[in-house]
Amino acid sequence: MEIEALIRPIPDFPIPGILFRDITPLLKDKQGFRGAIDLFVERFRDRGIDHVVAIESRGYIFGAPVAYGIGAGFIPVRKPGKLPHEKLVEDYALEYGTNSLEIHADALARDERVLVIDDLLATGGTAAATGRLLERLGAQVEAYAFLLELTALRGREQLRGAEIVSFVAY
Amino acid sequence: MEIEALIRPIPDFPIPGILFRDITPLLKDKQGFRGAIDLFVERFRDRGIDHVVAIESRGYIFGAPVAYGIGAGFIPVRKPGKLPHEKLVEDYALEYGTNSLEIHADALARDERVLVIDDLLATGGTAAATGRLLERLGAQVEAYAFLLELTALRGREQLRGAEIVSFVAY
Repeated sequence: MEIEALIRPIPDFPIPGILFRDITPLLKDKQGFRGAIDLFVERFRDRGIDHVVAIESRGYIFGAPVAYGIGAGFIPVRKPGKLPHEKLVEDYALEYGTNSLEIHADALARDERVLVIDDLLATGGTAAATGRLLERLGAQVEAYAFLLELTALRGREQLRGAEIVSFVAY
Repeated sequence: MEIEALIRPIPDFPIPGILFRDITPLLKDKQGFRGAIDLFVERFRDRGIDHVVAIESRGYIFGAPVAYGIGAGFIPVRKPGKLPHEKLVEDYALEYGTNSLEIHADALARDERVLVIDDLLATGGTAAATGRLLERLGAQVEAYAFLLELTALRGREQLRGAEIVSFVAY
């Protein structure tokens, strides 16, 4: 698996001082893309997961194929104003100000087992907000899984009570 | 296949007078989600497609699993400001004003065969802008494929020179 070799570092994006990890070379490589998805599929295939919950929008690129691969349903957590039905909202902190994430109130039944997927674990703010949405719905979070993790940002400390998996750590 | 039964009509979203087709009940249903993805996979499996190109963000929910299912690479077309490397931009018209879509300049090599996927064909503006991006890169669009099509909006007329497939028409 050449996953790390297919991730491109981009200095100073989106702002000076940030080294952005660009996954598009991995996604476009057919063996690389399949291999990345299979890391999740092989890890979570036999865990009785009912639904994959993924965070808009890069999380969908991993979460939707993993749901397909393990035979689970797919639940999108979305940015504000995009879900059309009754919904729950959770805020999370940005460097300046806050943003929020939304989930449909009828997305899950109580005690369903879910896997939360995003491309990247950085500060953990969006994943933690997703965890709060799922807790309010009474779902059971089996694990949080990420392709990449920026360990210096200590996002794992925001996520409690479930397994936390990442496949490439920086 | 119960796809149509799992799509929920929402009146007056996002604005009065619009009947929104909510796909979230389909996505969360494991048989429904798998069945929807398999419609694309069975149709495009043996067509020599190198890459699936999907439009942010609901297009990723279908495009990424289809790429995984047919063994293709995945290329995201994104909203402005999100791609970190050299890119091409195409504008498209909204009811008031314009928006734009972007693709990395190195996303494709010339003459690669691509399948464009989105959840919905409505006016065709975003799909046509994607087609122009792909034409500038010299790619060969094998087909445009959508789960849903709003036929009264005549979006197909915006898309020329490739097969156009939708699985549920309203």
